[in-house]
Amino acid sequence: MFESAEIGHSIPKARYKREEPKLREALLDAQFRLLQKPDFPVLILVGGVDGAGKGETVNLFNEWMDPRHIRTEAFESGDGTDSGRPLMWPFWRSLPRKGNVGMFFGSWYTRPIVDRAEGRSKKSAFAEDLERIRHFERMLVAEGVLLLKLWFHLSKDAQHKRLKKLGSDSLTAWRVTPRDWQRFRNYDRYARVSAETLRETSTGEAPWHVIDGSDSHYRALTAGNLLLDAMRRRLDGPAPPLSPAAPPPVPSLDGRDLLNTLDHGKRLSPARYEKQLEKAQARVAMLTREKRIRDRSLVCVFEGMDAAGKGSTIRRITRALDARFYRVVPIAAPSDEERAQPYLWRFWRNLPRHGHATIFDRSWYGRVLVERVEGFCAEVDWMRAYHEINEFEEQMVESGAIVLKFWLSITAEEQLKRFREREKVAYKRHKITQEDWRNRKKWPKYERAVCDMIERTSTVHAPWNLVPANDKKFARVMVLQTIADAIEEKL
Amino acid sequence: MFESAEIGHSIPKARYKREEPKLREALLDAQFRLLQKPDFPVLILVGGVDGAGKGETVNLFNEWMDPRHIRTEAFESGDGTDSGRPLMWPFWRSLPRKGNVGMFFGSWYTRPIVDRAEGRSKKSAFAEDLERIRHFERMLVAEGVLLLKLWFHLSKDAQHKRLKKLGSDSLTAWRVTPRDWQRFRNYDRYARVSAETLRETSTGEAPWHVIDGSDSHYRALTAGNLLLDAMRRRLDGPAPPLSPAAPPPVPSLDGRDLLNTLDHGKRLSPARYEKQLEKAQARVAMLTREKRIRDRSLVCVFEGMDAAGKGSTIRRITRALDARFYRVVPIAAPSDEERAQPYLWRFWRNLPRHGHATIFDRSWYGRVLVERVEGFCAEVDWMRAYHEINEFEEQMVESGAIVLKFWLSITAEEQLKRFREREKVAYKRHKITQEDWRNRKKWPKYERAVCDMIERTSTVHAPWNLVPANDKKFARVMVLQTIADAIEEKL
Repeated sequence: MFESAEIGHSIPKARYKREEPKLREALLDAQFRLLQKPDFPVLILVGGVDGAGKGETVNLFNEWMDPRHIRTEAFESGDGTDSGRPLMWPFWRSLPRKGNVGMFFGSWYTRPIVDRAEGRSKKSAFAEDLERIRHFERMLVAEGVLLLKLWFHLSKDAQHKRLKKLGSDSLTAWRVTPRDWQRFRNYDRYARVSAETLRETSTGEAPWHVIDGSDSHYRALTAGNLLLDAMRRRLDGPAPPLSPAAPPPVPSLDGRDLLNTLDHGKRLSPARYEKQLEKAQARVAMLTREKRIRDRSLVCVFEGMDAAGKGSTIRRITRALDARFYRVVPIAAPSDEERAQPYLWRFWRNLPRHGHATIFDRSWYGRVLVERVEGFCAEVDWMRAYHEINEFEEQMVESGAIVLKFWLSITAEEQLKRFREREKVAYKRHKITQEDWRNRKKWPKYERAVCDMIERTSTVHAPWNLVPANDKKFARVMVLQTIADAIEEKL
Repeated sequence: MFESAEIGHSIPKARYKREEPKLREALLDAQFRLLQKPDFPVLILVGGVDGAGKGETVNLFNEWMDPRHIRTEAFESGDGTDSGRPLMWPFWRSLPRKGNVGMFFGSWYTRPIVDRAEGRSKKSAFAEDLERIRHFERMLVAEGVLLLKLWFHLSKDAQHKRLKKLGSDSLTAWRVTPRDWQRFRNYDRYARVSAETLRETSTGEAPWHVIDGSDSHYRALTAGNLLLDAMRRRLDGPAPPLSPAAPPPVPSLDGRDLLNTLDHGKRLSPARYEKQLEKAQARVAMLTREKRIRDRSLVCVFEGMDAAGKGSTIRRITRALDARFYRVVPIAAPSDEERAQPYLWRFWRNLPRHGHATIFDRSWYGRVLVERVEGFCAEVDWMRAYHEINEFEEQMVESGAIVLKFWLSITAEEQLKRFREREKVAYKRHKITQEDWRNRKKWPKYERAVCDMIERTSTVHAPWNLVPANDKKFARVMVLQTIADAIEEKL
């Protein structure tokens, strides 16, 4: 991996002085073109050996381009481990928006490499970390992020000389910390782990570029040209080809599916409803006030056709909760800040920290429901979403979240009944619009999308709960009982 | 203050059962109307004695209305004291957006009251806290926030009974903490401090409503009706009258002002420029890498006419800084999330934490410059902004920020020269638009606005630096030297 970075690259000063101004102007021009037409963000990951010029390169990029549209973030190996949220959370929150350049100094690679090199993580955990990174980067690239991964390398000898030189100069001594020397003593181990990391995560869509860091001119021009080339290809070239996707799932030949075989006849009498609802609410009330919930979080997702009763069911839950414990997040059209980010971004930003709950009224499943049916995204985009969503939910669960997903299932006849009722009752009239009637015409398409969704995203860590909801009373009690059971089991 | 809340209010169950459903429906209707036309946010502050029904009321409001558009936040007395940002920062960040309801359980009142009652703050500091609160609330109301302040009261006897009752029931015992009992022992002191707080902060635009908390029916209906009444008045009534404002400042009679008396002839020779720039950059580089900067933050504000050289000056600063230390925030049109908040919100969200710097390329001064000149806000709005801005900057300084404001001053002739140059040079052409020419026609209006701004917002804690910028070299060196001097002085 590092072989060609140890053969001693260098560029004479005269050549640097000749080429640097041209490179600078070209980069500034590319940045300006991106700003004028903010179709994608640029994300540069900067990793490598201490003293190999990572900081210098980041500063140089900021100098060459307009720093007003660059955001540099520095991450430590411990970042993300104590947020009470998934490990990726700090990175999710720091992604540059379309049109901007983000530079991550240290990144999602830092913790896995350090943990492995320091012997804190096992081979299998390390392999899982890398697998997760591959998935995440594939998703970023598919979402349009221009991802450039730069690794600055120094041989053991070269690093030794460099740290000594930096440390002996009073102007730079502050930059060499005891931790740097400690890592140097483990040079071989870090080199081995880094090489494996780079090899395992140099994918077709997001390869690493290893740069010899010993000569400042060589490393600056190399890094700059890599960035320029990547930006130009994207700005000049045709849109990146959509990755080939398998054909979408076909409906079963006998017409039986998860929804039409569900028993929609389940009902509860008013008397039993009152009693069971109260009991289930009391259980949820007690459980969410237990001390042990402080190290967990709760994520509830509600999906269902229009008029399935999502809102009223959510209200039955929140009545059992303390208002300080939960937040309800209704998902409507994204804001312009959300539109400038990957589609999961607006859900990432709303994840609860430990000791708290978020209830999503509609969710990231919009990607494989409304966006699929209405054609708001390409087939390859919703096809890849199943896997991305599973990955996302798995990370939530690993961070201590209890993830509960409910599909409130009504029949087409029941929906029609409820629509008509809404039109009749004065204070419900605002709840029915022309769009609801339009959506209703696409019922078969939605039904197919729902069945695919349930089949492909019902995982061990976050299974779907199919709730027959023609009888609202039955549905509400079932949802509350499911929540109580799940918390009881997980605490 | 609490007299009428101790005469023993109560409402019989029958009346409650009759009135509660109507109140609930009316509240839901008001909430829906607000959502349909999101002109303002509703912010409810809930304070008062432990056990007086604060939590119950907040939960009830969430039950009565649609919880999807309500956000409840709980604050502790320590919130804001360790963020490395102004004390108000957590509240700024949690304000509800237009169309939504925010409920603050504990608020900016908690720390001042607790600190005073526990003897941790002096009378003068307490008075300052209350003064600051009055300013802040006046600003919120002027920005259109519907602010409702509810204080739930219990007499000493009633609180004693209530805490005992809660503590003896196994279902509610978790709610009574040792801290509650400790505060009860200091009941008289808390009552005294609270009464003073309520009296001092019951202003015409944001009065407190004290509610007897001993009877659950009385307190629920009272609080609910207060909210309903406040919302209805705003929804039905005419827009709130703009608070009367003094006439705007008049220009001086002899035509002399801060800008036209500035010596724009100051220049630096290329040789001296190179030397002085390098020296000043080295000073800034060293100073921003000192350990002591970790307990401070740096906020630089750049304002100036078009083509005054803001961008190029900022780049001379960032070259001296480590990319991990700073962020440049260019201020352009607000996003839709920013538009749904008070005008300072988009600056609040970009304040640096300790050990970091934010450089604003244009800033909150847009309120008294472009918004004033172009008529984007009413006269009363930019007139009140001077005071609001001074208050804002004072809070930054108190939190440890070094605030530096630069007006890069060029003459109208120099601007014309630069505009023409931009039109000629190919890679500068994107920097000149029709709007720049339009703005130029309003030069006298801008000049007047600038002079008023400097006079009214040059404070001891954050004075303006007027930089003659007809010679870019002189301006850059002066800015860098000013930054170095200021950090040196403050560290």
